[in-house]
Amino acid sequence: MSTPSSTVHPSSWRATGAAELTPEAIDQIDRWWRAANYLSVGQIYLLDNPLMREPLTRDHVKPRLLGHWGTTPGLNFLYAHLNRAIREREQSTLYVTGPGHGGPGLVANSYLEGTYSETYSDITQDDEGLRRLFRQFSFPGGIPSHVAPETPGSIHEGGELGYALSHAYGAAFDNPDLLVAAVVGDGEAETGPLATSWHSNKFVNPVQDGVVLPILHLNGYKIANPTVLDRISDDELRDLMTGYGHTPYFFNGGFDGEDPVEVHRRFAGLLDEVLDHIARIKADAHAGNEERPAWPMIVFRTPKGWTCPPVIDGKKTEDSWRAHQVPLASARDTPEHLEVLRGWLESYRADELFDADGRLLPEIADLAPAGELRMSGNPHANGGLLLKDLRLPDFRDFAVDVPTPGGAVAEATRVLGTWLTDVVRNNPDNFRIFGPDETASNRLQAVYDATDKQWNGEFYGPEVDEHLARAGRVMEMLSEHQCQGWLEGYLLTGRHGLFTSYEAFIHIVDSMFNQHAKWLKVTGDIPWRRPVASLNYLLSSHVWRQDHNGFSHQDPGFIDHVVNKKAEIVRVYLPPDANTLLSTYDHCLRSRQYVNVVVAGKQPAPQFLSMEQAIAHCSRGLGIWEWAGTEVVGEDPDVVLGAAGDVPTLEVLAAADILRHRIPDLKVRVVNVVDLMRLQDEKEHPHGLSDKDFDTLFTSDRPVIFNYHGYPWLIHRLTYRRTNHPNIHVRGYKEEGTTTTPFDMAMLNDIDRYHLVIDVIDRVPSLRSTYAGLRQEMVDARLAARQYTREHGEDIPEVREWVWPDVGETATENGGPQYDAAAATGGDNE
Amino acid sequence: MSTPSSTVHPSSWRATGAAELTPEAIDQIDRWWRAANYLSVGQIYLLDNPLMREPLTRDHVKPRLLGHWGTTPGLNFLYAHLNRAIREREQSTLYVTGPGHGGPGLVANSYLEGTYSETYSDITQDDEGLRRLFRQFSFPGGIPSHVAPETPGSIHEGGELGYALSHAYGAAFDNPDLLVAAVVGDGEAETGPLATSWHSNKFVNPVQDGVVLPILHLNGYKIANPTVLDRISDDELRDLMTGYGHTPYFFNGGFDGEDPVEVHRRFAGLLDEVLDHIARIKADAHAGNEERPAWPMIVFRTPKGWTCPPVIDGKKTEDSWRAHQVPLASARDTPEHLEVLRGWLESYRADELFDADGRLLPEIADLAPAGELRMSGNPHANGGLLLKDLRLPDFRDFAVDVPTPGGAVAEATRVLGTWLTDVVRNNPDNFRIFGPDETASNRLQAVYDATDKQWNGEFYGPEVDEHLARAGRVMEMLSEHQCQGWLEGYLLTGRHGLFTSYEAFIHIVDSMFNQHAKWLKVTGDIPWRRPVASLNYLLSSHVWRQDHNGFSHQDPGFIDHVVNKKAEIVRVYLPPDANTLLSTYDHCLRSRQYVNVVVAGKQPAPQFLSMEQAIAHCSRGLGIWEWAGTEVVGEDPDVVLGAAGDVPTLEVLAAADILRHRIPDLKVRVVNVVDLMRLQDEKEHPHGLSDKDFDTLFTSDRPVIFNYHGYPWLIHRLTYRRTNHPNIHVRGYKEEGTTTTPFDMAMLNDIDRYHLVIDVIDRVPSLRSTYAGLRQEMVDARLAARQYTREHGEDIPEVREWVWPDVGETATENGGPQYDAAAATGGDNE
Repeated sequence: MSTPSSTVHPSSWRATGAAELTPEAIDQIDRWWRAANYLSVGQIYLLDNPLMREPLTRDHVKPRLLGHWGTTPGLNFLYAHLNRAIREREQSTLYVTGPGHGGPGLVANSYLEGTYSETYSDITQDDEGLRRLFRQFSFPGGIPSHVAPETPGSIHEGGELGYALSHAYGAAFDNPDLLVAAVVGDGEAETGPLATSWHSNKFVNPVQDGVVLPILHLNGYKIANPTVLDRISDDELRDLMTGYGHTPYFFNGGFDGEDPVEVHRRFAGLLDEVLDHIARIKADAHAGNEERPAWPMIVFRTPKGWTCPPVIDGKKTEDSWRAHQVPLASARDTPEHLEVLRGWLESYRADELFDADGRLLPEIADLAPAGELRMSGNPHANGGLLLKDLRLPDFRDFAVDVPTPGGAVAEATRVLGTWLTDVVRNNPDNFRIFGPDETASNRLQAVYDATDKQWNGEFYGPEVDEHLARAGRVMEMLSEHQCQGWLEGYLLTGRHGLFTSYEAFIHIVDSMFNQHAKWLKVTGDIPWRRPVASLNYLLSSHVWRQDHNGFSHQDPGFIDHVVNKKAEIVRVYLPPDANTLLSTYDHCLRSRQYVNVVVAGKQPAPQFLSMEQAIAHCSRGLGIWEWAGTEVVGEDPDVVLGAAGDVPTLEVLAAADILRHRIPDLKVRVVNVVDLMRLQDEKEHPHGLSDKDFDTLFTSDRPVIFNYHGYPWLIHRLTYRRTNHPNIHVRGYKEEGTTTTPFDMAMLNDIDRYHLVIDVIDRVPSLRSTYAGLRQEMVDARLAARQYTREHGEDIPEVREWVWPDVGETATENGGPQYDAAAATGGDNE
Repeated sequence: MSTPSSTVHPSSWRATGAAELTPEAIDQIDRWWRAANYLSVGQIYLLDNPLMREPLTRDHVKPRLLGHWGTTPGLNFLYAHLNRAIREREQSTLYVTGPGHGGPGLVANSYLEGTYSETYSDITQDDEGLRRLFRQFSFPGGIPSHVAPETPGSIHEGGELGYALSHAYGAAFDNPDLLVAAVVGDGEAETGPLATSWHSNKFVNPVQDGVVLPILHLNGYKIANPTVLDRISDDELRDLMTGYGHTPYFFNGGFDGEDPVEVHRRFAGLLDEVLDHIARIKADAHAGNEERPAWPMIVFRTPKGWTCPPVIDGKKTEDSWRAHQVPLASARDTPEHLEVLRGWLESYRADELFDADGRLLPEIADLAPAGELRMSGNPHANGGLLLKDLRLPDFRDFAVDVPTPGGAVAEATRVLGTWLTDVVRNNPDNFRIFGPDETASNRLQAVYDATDKQWNGEFYGPEVDEHLARAGRVMEMLSEHQCQGWLEGYLLTGRHGLFTSYEAFIHIVDSMFNQHAKWLKVTGDIPWRRPVASLNYLLSSHVWRQDHNGFSHQDPGFIDHVVNKKAEIVRVYLPPDANTLLSTYDHCLRSRQYVNVVVAGKQPAPQFLSMEQAIAHCSRGLGIWEWAGTEVVGEDPDVVLGAAGDVPTLEVLAAADILRHRIPDLKVRVVNVVDLMRLQDEKEHPHGLSDKDFDTLFTSDRPVIFNYHGYPWLIHRLTYRRTNHPNIHVRGYKEEGTTTTPFDMAMLNDIDRYHLVIDVIDRVPSLRSTYAGLRQEMVDARLAARQYTREHGEDIPEVREWVWPDVGETATENGGPQYDAAAATGGDNE
């Protein structure tokens, strides 16, 4: 692998013209292609005898044939041709392989380019190296069958399909000299995320961003079916691609016994034409043309399984779905298939490709560009090499002034937005904010003081197009898939960002998160992969405040989904107010190789911690809020009220307020949790608390009422091994919603202050009989509160106007902090 | 609501010609539209004084203004015009509202059609009814702001965006006389699922299925941004829609002060033209034309917030994103805004719409079609009304003969496929199988004996197009979103089906599952909503056997996701062999209102239960496998080995085999769990076991080693309240993968037989010292097994050839059952 470097080979976007290739040049490409194909077939089938120096026997064939041939020869063909063009144009290029199960092809090309041996020193450029290369593929202890993190040059595994173009565009943003050749499988093209990702071209800036060249690999078949885009007319496909805003270039090659020389000649010409077209667009844009260009894309129609045996066991195989995986599944067990395999391997004429030692002939190797221009050696594909720390403004400067707990009101995400404004200012080319039309809805609109939403569709003028510009740091498209995919591509190529979304709808990208978390887990164990910036979520418009939208917008389960992934990768934060959110996010933007999930409200809410307190609290991740409790130092409390999440915290404090007035002798401890993983055992998660520390906070035998933002059982899952677990009672979201007042929503799920008091009375034995009256009062209060909402359409004044008692006395005099400003500020959007 | 009926008004697909409407007819449409708009604004803003019989004051305005205006007038306009056409053509029509936050509009039209009052008797057709209608909207104790289950005529809430077209096509399949008018918001059109769902037209059969008329509601803006499809040229948009296979009809109306009369006249003509075009296609298809038609779609460009105040507070509001939600957010608090609201309401001239009692004038009401032709009264939108039981073949007839436990080998899903073949045969028009190109990969290919994959793209001939036909029961497109959306639409309109997918990639539809589960939960509480068939998943190609694909294809977390939803909705089954899978699926296809998740392997595997045993086991949901254990009747065992899932069960049995031979005195109990929810407390889930029954099975104090298919903590979550929970040790998937042999995969996650024996020795105190030697032997066996895979590329013979001892003696003589047939059958696909 190349040495760490932040300088990428400059690109000139040269227009070279479509020179007619010499026969030698064509032969070089063809031999590279044959070599890549040979190495691909070898990886799938061969355990030994890599260059067939001895007669092929069953013992040379792997006992379990695992992998995919179908897409591979097409990928190899494109790779060979791109190499010729890259070398001629010195064009820094990244290769994104949509059909990721074409893994053997990408490994083969990396090997031919030399990067594979540079990266893995035991895979040498000789016979023995070839044997190891073949053997390790999809083999126990070896490498995966996909274009996984182990593959040099990859930022896109392609295991789950749909994200090739969004990853490609993510890589292109802010890399003005980078070409991303993105192969889209025609199977993948049927997925939803891919179908909308063509529209990325309305969001890319022709001057400041790089260029994505989509190549639709139309080989006609999926696992067992034709593909949709192959079975519509060329006219329809042309319309579709034109409608997506592209200039389609059609290429059909390799059918009906077409001479490979002819195929190469034609494709080389077309590729030059396309790259010249791109160069012209780039030049135009630099010359000031602001019209959105119809970027070229290539419809690359070639046979599936190209160059494999046309017919196997009497069934058409090449150019059919039967070539998808391993066309000769019983090559080891049936002599006939072994013979077919031998013939197939021999068809590539390895003796014209490798020398006596098994080394690629120099006249073929010469096709590869030099150093970092090799696609398998492009530093953008190992983004950590290029990663620079963000220049972060001091978040303390953006603190909300909280003179006493509850003594200020703020919208947490709006405050975060002010800090992000300076993050944007300080980092004009390596930080972006992604969101599905919700950046303002989630109250980050302060960032528009420093930047705009990048947009390359038509403009209608300032009357309606606020903060919309041809270049900007905010990327908004109504597709969570696009936001996630763009951000992943941006991060994996060494930049920073965050994704802000409604909490409920982040589940749309559950499976994308899975794949990214798996990528991070694997790269953590690959020494040459340098750490990349964390993927940061900001989930607002959360379950408790879906005033406009109700039940369908209520789902706090993304946290549950996330914590199934490796503990070393995932972090979950629930800051209870603005200052804790600032401190948390500063931490997130500094971190590497994590997925950070931060859930924070956007509604006006009381602020509890000064910045100094917030920093201390976030450093600990959880802690006792002494000012809120009534415990006696040195003694265990009678009851612990725990909270994680802003609304649950508010209700816990309101309950603590009632308890201190109504049961003054009760020793109440209030514990707040910001870093959810602190609840887990230290053996389970790097942030986990020791049992001793946990017991100190939550006691070993006192009742704990834990008011949680999400589904209650997650808290049980995290704490079931703790000493005091039998006494932990969790309140959380129970899939009860549709209400339109915040407090009614809390009551429906029993996280409200009155129910918490009931919980305390029910669980502290000494209170049950003595405080039966208060208990009944709480039951009545709930009924009355509900009745009031049905009458008035808003929450009872006691709840709307409640303030923490320390500030109540002075605050009420001058009107006090008011945090039921939802109506005034419009509540949740969408 | 109409009475239950299975006969839907027949449709004739009449071509009426585009008659020029009379001024009266146009006035009727306009007045309907104004009435619907008035009622929509009223719902968003008014608490009282519905027809403004008295001067509007702040007290008439709701204190919290919650809802969305922007999309509503366009939806109302379309509804009015469709009514005219439906009445004239007697065309059974379903209205799918992509922009579901246009809820007030759909409620308004249902009210105008009378169905609302028929459904909710307290919402009468008079002043008081109007007051209640307005008040209840997005109000505590009232109705949601979206086109939720509470809305008559809805099968599509539209809370989460992206599924309007897939739901519409799902409704149209097998309903040859049904028109589904599907409004697609231009925001929604940016989502991935929507972007690919246009291709549904390659899967619909023009004779046997109904017709979807997509109407792209191009009002230009989302929450705070322009939309992509509004900001490309009409030429591009036309190309895009043509490329998607549609004939686009463009309509621009309501701009630049265009006279409403003119707008109505033009749109009525266009709608007639479109419906006549559809009628011609239908007639052509019936006449035998098999060419795929370019179905019409309408690009409906009208101003966002149409008819609201053009400018508010000096900012353009109508025809801008500012009209998205509540344009006059402070109507109650600022007299200026109240005055604007008054003027806005008055602009609809309610006195020309409602009589003195508040009833819609009969000459307007007459626009509505009769009875079930009303879109809000269409029985297809309350699918339970039309639902018929499936005619299910006796699954016992498809049993695998299992003479002794382990005495047969079968691929579970392949066996299920034979039964499904007869399900398909018996139910030729109300049962479909959906899958993303994986029906055969998941081994259900027997169904192709009875049916084909429905396909309306081009055909290339039998050499490659196996089981592909213009009509068939299997729907395959490489989009989990499409499969899920189609199936949901199919179920909600009263039919049956299942969705088979790779386990890992079912996460792609996590959020769609959420929405469907929420829909089911809510409809369960709505008396007039009749139960629909359950949504059945068959997840195969599961985490333990991703031989071809490795880590990126390993994720058993969908179960965790599912169990967050309401217990009365969700069911999870892990049948350990073919006969239990048959019994389970028979149960699933008979059930109603559930989401059934069934995870089952497709690899050759030993079969343990005869059909009689399987039925008994599935009826209990879990139970002791006496034949596998060594316990003494009437005594607690020394240890319990629990298992859920096929591979974990196999490993538990292999461990039990080792234990019975090597520690013959040890009393081992083997418990197998099919119905995962049985583990939960009976108070938490309807299937939950009582504590007593749980203790009987799992003892109150003996060590339990539980080998689980998925993430281990789920078992803790389900059992944390059980007496013996502290002694339950769970093994499961720990995000460790990439290996390519099944047993290596088991070992990586400690669910293998050797590790289970180690677990038993470690946890049964009496064994620790005595069996230290056996323990070390197991440790060594694991190392040797791993070493063997790295040498040979396959699992050790002892594992590949292991059989349950009861059959071992006889079986080995004649070769015995072999279940390592993965190589021969090709292993996992994709």
